[in-house]
Amino acid sequence: MGVRSFIVFVSFFMLFLSLSSAFPKHKKQYKPCKHLVLYFHDIIYNGKNAANATSAIVAAPQGANMTILAPQFHFGNIAVFDDPITLDNNLHSKPVGRAQGMYFYDTKNTYTAWLGFSFSLNTTAYQGSINFIGADPLMNKTRDISIVGGTGDFFMHRGVATIMTDAFEGEVYFRLRVDINFYECW
Amino acid sequence: MGVRSFIVFVSFFMLFLSLSSAFPKHKKQYKPCKHLVLYFHDIIYNGKNAANATSAIVAAPQGANMTILAPQFHFGNIAVFDDPITLDNNLHSKPVGRAQGMYFYDTKNTYTAWLGFSFSLNTTAYQGSINFIGADPLMNKTRDISIVGGTGDFFMHRGVATIMTDAFEGEVYFRLRVDINFYECW
Amino acid sequence: MGVRSFIVFVSFFMLFLSLSSAFPKHKKQYKPCKHLVLYFHDIIYNGKNAANATSAIVAAPQGANMTILAPQFHFGNIAVFDDPITLDNNLHSKPVGRAQGMYFYDTKNTYTAWLGFSFSLNTTAYQGSINFIGADPLMNKTRDISIVGGTGDFFMHRGVATIMTDAFEGEVYFRLRVDINFYECW
Repeated sequence: MGVRSFIVFVSFFMLFLSLSSAFPKHKKQYKPCKHLVLYFHDIIYNGKNAANATSAIVAAPQGANMTILAPQFHFGNIAVFDDPITLDNNLHSKPVGRAQGMYFYDTKNTYTAWLGFSFSLNTTAYQGSINFIGADPLMNKTRDISIVGGTGDFFMHRGVATIMTDAFEGEVYFRLRVDINFYECW
Repeated sequence: MGVRSFIVFVSFFMLFLSLSSAFPKHKKQYKPCKHLVLYFHDIIYNGKNAANATSAIVAAPQGANMTILAPQFHFGNIAVFDDPITLDNNLHSKPVGRAQGMYFYDTKNTYTAWLGFSFSLNTTAYQGSINFIGADPLMNKTRDISIVGGTGDFFMHRGVATIMTDAFEGEVYFRLRVDINFYECW
Repeated sequence: MGVRSFIVFVSFFMLFLSLSSAFPKHKKQYKPCKHLVLYFHDIIYNGKNAANATSAIVAAPQGANMTILAPQFHFGNIAVFDDPITLDNNLHSKPVGRAQGMYFYDTKNTYTAWLGFSFSLNTTAYQGSINFIGADPLMNKTRDISIVGGTGDFFMHRGVATIMTDAFEGEVYFRLRVDINFYECW
């Protein structure tokens, strides 16, 4: 009886596992398999801050130029950036990597950007890159973008990143807090 | 005997389930797990239509400008857009969201574009964003691009979108029909 | 006894399968399910090579122009390209498709680019497109970027591409070797 009971128990246990894996929807983890919080800092070139600037306007709509953000909520400006990534919200903390890519403003009646960029991390904990794209409606407190891939320690990872404007100073400096949640980790 | 037969039956049933989940390739669904058809409308700024324009040229090759599309099949033009999305092919239907991002023309001897954009949907049925990238050889009747991620109701979704030029008027207006097929739905 | 032993054996066998599928990490294949090696060739427009050029500078930072790459490691230049893809490293081999998209230089103190592009392949072996994004730190011998999706024969594929600068001639020509490794093949 003991053996038989054990078999029945194991059978039901396996039945549970089998069913849970046969319907992958229920198997997917909605809590992240890896989580990181990072900050990055953007200082845009305004014609006077070449030494400190980490980004620059490289495209603009008719009538605008490369040192002053365009008039209609910056609509049509593309900026290219190479921003330091830090573990806390201090611009002067030791960088753990670089956020590299572009953002462009794509709405005429509010602040909305579109992001395409990568994090290149180089720490004892993590070595590798994370690739992001998505819409960034700046006036929302938090915005979700897609993590579409990764390399190195983030090989084939996917997920969602929640962005928050942690600080901004006029039109020159902003700092984003990025909550990185991976849901496919390999 | 009844119990033993039952155990054997359950065992084989689980064996089947186990095997089916151990070889996930056979589990993937090639019919979409979610399907949407949407239209978006692009009116490009030509120097005279500021009030109606939903997109603008923001980059151009040598010798071209921001109000006239470049001569060689628009090669080298980048346009940034914030286009209304509608459920049918009528520009004046109530928008269900915004298509925001960029397209650029990247061939000198035919019309080919590259797209990087997001749909931000805000309806009773769907709230969230869908992120797309891909090549768009405009002269083909239909073109497939990748859906690389999503947020909100499209959390972690992936799929393929089939694009069709539903209408165009000269170089100012075009309308795309987008058949969205998600194959990973979470 | 024989039956009972068999049941116990089958049970443990299924337990193994169940567990292996309940923890998908161990199930994923780290050797590629599909592998391709391709080359593409970029000839950037410099004001004199219109007939041969396959790419053009379309955006530049303040003070730079569209025929000379910008001074600080080309920081701020966006180039749009339509480059031939070949099976070997010979520019004059019969193309098997086109690499179409953009790259932009995004660092002021070294050569780093960001890539967003597609391969459109049209051979007897493969018909379809592959979509890539990622950071490209040019000074590294090899760089990994993400394959975020595909269409046609690459329907829903994901993977990692390893890029190598196979040759470059001054600032006009470069050739990249792309090792494409798909890890999700459908």
